[in-house]
Amino acid sequence: MSKYSIGIDFGTLSGRAIVVDLSDGHIAGESVMEYPHKVMSETLPDGTPLGSDWALQHPRDYLEVLYTVVPQAVRESGVNPADIIGIGIDFTSSTVLPVRADGTPLCFEERFASEPHAYVKLWKHHAAQADADRLNEVAAERKEKFLTRYGGKTSSEWMIPKIMQILREAPEIYGEAAAFIEAADWIVLQLTGEWTVNACAAGFKCLWSKRDGYPSEDFFAALDPRLKNFVKDKIKGRVTPVGRRAGRLTQSAACRLGLAASTAVAAGVVDAHAALPAVGVVDKGKMLLIIGTSSCDVLLSDREEAIEGICGIVEDGVIEGYYAYESGQSCVGDLFDWFVNNCVPSRYEAEARCRGINIHALLSEKAAKLAPGESGLVALDWWNGNRSVLVDSELSGLIAGVTLGTKPEEIYRALIEATAFGKRVILDTYEAAGVKIDELYACGGISRKNELMMQIYADVTGREITVSACSQTSAMGAVMMGAVAAGKAAGGFDSLDQAAKLSRTDKVYRPIARNVGRYARIFVEYKRMHDFFGKKCDVMKKLRELKKESF
Amino acid sequence: MSKYSIGIDFGTLSGRAIVVDLSDGHIAGESVMEYPHKVMSETLPDGTPLGSDWALQHPRDYLEVLYTVVPQAVRESGVNPADIIGIGIDFTSSTVLPVRADGTPLCFEERFASEPHAYVKLWKHHAAQADADRLNEVAAERKEKFLTRYGGKTSSEWMIPKIMQILREAPEIYGEAAAFIEAADWIVLQLTGEWTVNACAAGFKCLWSKRDGYPSEDFFAALDPRLKNFVKDKIKGRVTPVGRRAGRLTQSAACRLGLAASTAVAAGVVDAHAALPAVGVVDKGKMLLIIGTSSCDVLLSDREEAIEGICGIVEDGVIEGYYAYESGQSCVGDLFDWFVNNCVPSRYEAEARCRGINIHALLSEKAAKLAPGESGLVALDWWNGNRSVLVDSELSGLIAGVTLGTKPEEIYRALIEATAFGKRVILDTYEAAGVKIDELYACGGISRKNELMMQIYADVTGREITVSACSQTSAMGAVMMGAVAAGKAAGGFDSLDQAAKLSRTDKVYRPIARNVGRYARIFVEYKRMHDFFGKKCDVMKKLRELKKESF
Repeated sequence: MSKYSIGIDFGTLSGRAIVVDLSDGHIAGESVMEYPHKVMSETLPDGTPLGSDWALQHPRDYLEVLYTVVPQAVRESGVNPADIIGIGIDFTSSTVLPVRADGTPLCFEERFASEPHAYVKLWKHHAAQADADRLNEVAAERKEKFLTRYGGKTSSEWMIPKIMQILREAPEIYGEAAAFIEAADWIVLQLTGEWTVNACAAGFKCLWSKRDGYPSEDFFAALDPRLKNFVKDKIKGRVTPVGRRAGRLTQSAACRLGLAASTAVAAGVVDAHAALPAVGVVDKGKMLLIIGTSSCDVLLSDREEAIEGICGIVEDGVIEGYYAYESGQSCVGDLFDWFVNNCVPSRYEAEARCRGINIHALLSEKAAKLAPGESGLVALDWWNGNRSVLVDSELSGLIAGVTLGTKPEEIYRALIEATAFGKRVILDTYEAAGVKIDELYACGGISRKNELMMQIYADVTGREITVSACSQTSAMGAVMMGAVAAGKAAGGFDSLDQAAKLSRTDKVYRPIARNVGRYARIFVEYKRMHDFFGKKCDVMKKLRELKKESF
Repeated sequence: MSKYSIGIDFGTLSGRAIVVDLSDGHIAGESVMEYPHKVMSETLPDGTPLGSDWALQHPRDYLEVLYTVVPQAVRESGVNPADIIGIGIDFTSSTVLPVRADGTPLCFEERFASEPHAYVKLWKHHAAQADADRLNEVAAERKEKFLTRYGGKTSSEWMIPKIMQILREAPEIYGEAAAFIEAADWIVLQLTGEWTVNACAAGFKCLWSKRDGYPSEDFFAALDPRLKNFVKDKIKGRVTPVGRRAGRLTQSAACRLGLAASTAVAAGVVDAHAALPAVGVVDKGKMLLIIGTSSCDVLLSDREEAIEGICGIVEDGVIEGYYAYESGQSCVGDLFDWFVNNCVPSRYEAEARCRGINIHALLSEKAAKLAPGESGLVALDWWNGNRSVLVDSELSGLIAGVTLGTKPEEIYRALIEATAFGKRVILDTYEAAGVKIDELYACGGISRKNELMMQIYADVTGREITVSACSQTSAMGAVMMGAVAAGKAAGGFDSLDQAAKLSRTDKVYRPIARNVGRYARIFVEYKRMHDFFGKKCDVMKKLRELKKESF
């Protein structure tokens, strides 16, 4: 008799549950639901206006989704709830909310219904940039060691800047909150009654490390004296590695979900990182490229090295026993979409319509006929700044080599190549620091749709790339974590390494020797431009200053 | 009773005659006709194939056009032929042909009908690049002084490389030719029986100068011993300044044209340069910007300075008593057309169609709403290489500062600005060498159609720009030259300075102080990019090499 595990994936706009057969990895049931309040960036539900760069969510949406999609997915699967042994939860991060000692969100209270800071700050809430700047400044001044784990710079998307903004703008909320909690951990709390802090979010988004813990009280005091005891006072629960059991369903949660009260619930995990075991990336030297609107790389290694310009390094951050490194590129799919929306002439659109294919497919088909270097173009893929390894959001896109004969498909290909060259800069940076990358894996919509792009990535990086066959890798990773939380004795697994045997891969892209050689030469030119505009010449910053002044 | 003059403008694809009233400058009659053989770039009329980069014309076409458009224009004007006192001829250049001692083109002879080298080599015949390279090499080795008058480099479009190619590939034609003659001078010969060499073509296209004459016999011998006596043997006629009378109509020419045999015929002139008096540019410190697919600047000065990267400097080259400097940009209108054909999305095309305006007008309208710097973009206008002042056809286009929010009209404006910045580099180069530019004038289709562009030019250069009201400036210049050749006593003028009073200008664009200041700051960034990619970094050349290899 098969056993099953449920993965619940809380994304930016919707939540999804899948019920998976642990004997073969097939998805037996699935359900998805959008958050009723979506992303609140203009006003609260009662009309209270929000500032610019704000992005909030309503925690009641998460509960509504949770108690809708899980029962639906189970019903659809036809599985006997008694055979469901585990649940895993992945969530966007840092997506954080202030709660009472019993876990009730402050925004549930009448008196705080009009207080923006009482709600969930979604990962892409960018209104705490000033706080992030201050955090970076203070940390640099104090030569805080943790900075080396984050490539020298932390992001406004992370937890501490968001807390700093609350303290600064709504000290009452800071005072009233018994805890600030990642939404992933809050869901775990709702299901199990247990306070946990998932190691993945703590490490990648809250400056925690296995060896050094959180930053010191002195550091927090330097940010603001009122923050001195932040960790002691406002973080509840033990840091728990990915795949460990956070607890078991409470009677009431089990009842609402229609599951057994004994069902194991895994500690939470950041959505992107959850994908690793689902793609079979569970040991050192393997890197997963998660390619979507932007791209995120997660690499496993047994070495800890300080590497400039990466987003984070967390011991036991995803797979216990390994350091997980994260790096990324700020626009990939977004770049191609920008091009298609702004730069493709009507005759191309007409051709695509006439042939019944989408415009990306048409451009890819035309671009695939070009040899590397044939366009004479090279671009810097910084349309949305550069995340790794320059960590500079003020940089901008560039294309060179354009002539009167340049065609749209040549530019399209040059943009794909630019993101591939950007990836190679990242890989080279890891390897130069002594962190080896033997194999590449890829997941995310584009990796399964755009063969030209994946071949270019293989040719530019000179590495085989294995693409996942799964379209829901985060949810599938959460399934595996639920199965490990349940344990082998219950019909699950003893480790993520074992659970990862359920992963299914699709196509493998192998570097084509002739292209590798040509791209190596084009990359020399890309790298010269990269270093010039990224490090030596501030033209892009001056242009941005002039742009800001003109408003 | 008004007197009249005829201007005949031989362009690349057609010839045009206008009959102009010298009392007020109005065009009384006009006629235009295409060359029956157009530009021959694939085969001769008998099917003989041509090499790549060849561009020939048939001299019989010129005669057919001449004897068609002049009588038609006169007929249309209703003017009494006795009142037509002068004729001026402007022609593309260097457009050159081999002729017998009586002026008969070699290609008119049966035995040479299949010999490509017996025909007219049109200005854009580019098959003599190897010869131009050799000429530049030999001149540089010998430290020929004339090189300083051409910015250090001569072009394959000029006369001597074309002659070198004939000698190399068809020595018999070189031997049989009694003379090689510019088509402008050949038309003058047909009309008057006089051999002249117009000073404009001799100076700008054949290395001649008023003070030093042609290059030395030693120089020609160094190119090829057989060329030693080239000037003595193969150039017939005296160099004649623009506006001087070459002669009067022969009886037979007068008869075929339906004009009086006494009609004065001016020495020929290069078509672009003919525009100067027609726009009122007849004294020092004035520069004419001729803006079309590419752009050509002609500046008058009383100083002779060696300036790097200009195309040529010729004493008495256009207006007697002044040095005429020529510089240029390799793509202007072509660049905007490239953008419109390759980079404008269908929703823009639909909007333009719906509103019944052309796409350039729509883009200009949207771009005009932007403030300088607002797009955050800066481009290098080298889509077709750089003519002045870098003189490097291997350079290519670049755009920087692109973001996910960049719109098509922002790129369109950045491209216009790039050509304006390129122009400013040229102006700054002249001024740095001590050659002053007080006023700018403009002619050519774009200058009369695109107000946004002209305002940007005024703002970027910080100078007033007066736009010509005339759409046929070359022909109008030729009219003035015909009137000067006839002289004041006959009802014409004594000088081009006086004839230029017939010129009519349209709109004057004045720099807007706020924009001038902002563009000065953006120009700093353009110039940094210009100098980096133009002088220090060979990325563009490497990309071009890789492109060539991929074929």
